[in-house]
Amino acid sequence: MDLPSKILEQAVNELSSLPGVGKRSALRFALHLLQSTESEVEDFTSSIARLKSDIHYCSRCHCISDTPVCPICANPKRQQNILCVVENIQDVMAIENTQQYRGIYHVLGGVISPIDGVGINDLNISSLLDRLKKEEISEVILALPTTMEGDTTNFYISKQLQAFPQILVTTIARGIAIGDNLEYADEITLGRSITNRVPFNSIRG
Amino acid sequence: MDLPSKILEQAVNELSSLPGVGKRSALRFALHLLQSTESEVEDFTSSIARLKSDIHYCSRCHCISDTPVCPICANPKRQQNILCVVENIQDVMAIENTQQYRGIYHVLGGVISPIDGVGINDLNISSLLDRLKKEEISEVILALPTTMEGDTTNFYISKQLQAFPQILVTTIARGIAIGDNLEYADEITLGRSITNRVPFNSIRG
Repeated sequence: MDLPSKILEQAVNELSSLPGVGKRSALRFALHLLQSTESEVEDFTSSIARLKSDIHYCSRCHCISDTPVCPICANPKRQQNILCVVENIQDVMAIENTQQYRGIYHVLGGVISPIDGVGINDLNISSLLDRLKKEEISEVILALPTTMEGDTTNFYISKQLQAFPQILVTTIARGIAIGDNLEYADEITLGRSITNRVPFNSIRG
Repeated sequence: MDLPSKILEQAVNELSSLPGVGKRSALRFALHLLQSTESEVEDFTSSIARLKSDIHYCSRCHCISDTPVCPICANPKRQQNILCVVENIQDVMAIENTQQYRGIYHVLGGVISPIDGVGINDLNISSLLDRLKKEEISEVILALPTTMEGDTTNFYISKQLQAFPQILVTTIARGIAIGDNLEYADEITLGRSITNRVPFNSIRG
């Protein structure tokens, strides 16, 4: 698409760098911003600029936070002895939304992925081990994605956790999603859900 | 969704003001920007800020432009006596992409819509009439959307154009889209395409 203005073209290029945004949507965004008032655009750009300049990462769990220690880590009502290891901040938010978890988190910032050049030292693994030495953790929940990279990372971390025999290592339950029909489930999930079946009376909503 | 940071929340709110973007996509955008480098975010915000500060509107046709008169109006190879009236800049780009039109444009900046509070004086109609007085225009093509608002605007403009009896007033052809099956066409379009049928030999690709 030929655009009548280089300035518009630049804005479209930048907006299309957002995940899942193509040139057409980016153009819609740019024309929307063009038709907004000056103060609206100022609010828009400054809120994004502040993302980089003002946001902190929690010094304990590496989640984003407006304070040096995030509200979850600083909350005395959370169970400070149960630690859930997740890939990224989105996963913390997803688990928080369930309102089923009252422990604390550790955000790895990714998973081991040689193809993307992500190695052990790019992740917050050494700070995880430091925490396990300093804090009184009794359970580590591995809640990484069920991908090859997630499994590799799970395996590496579980090896490291052997140095802490007093810590229970668990992982989130995998199986057929609530409300899903068995016939539409993929074979691996269904197969594993049969192999790893649980006593009926142990199920909690 | 509860966000762990007010700064993130503000950015998500601003990003979800973009057309067609919900809170979930906005969060994805915000986390993407958060993970970009400082200079990438700087490029992103400055390109958007420049949209408001540096972009011009063509003094003749009201299309956006980096120069006081846009490249289309300034191009001596365009037919300066054929004027196509469109709703907005997107429509100029859509028609330009067809490479079938060699005349010039006039961007109204909207259509008459009492429900949205858009009246005659909010549109570039008086500047259109000024142009028709000053420039040697022999044909005005009305290329507004086929909505109630578009039809109202077409009607109002065509009334005004009666003051220029030497100008031919045309509108773009409506009918079944190329490649569409008749059975799936809506009744109004199909009905009009039969009523307004054209000689077979007059069709040009």
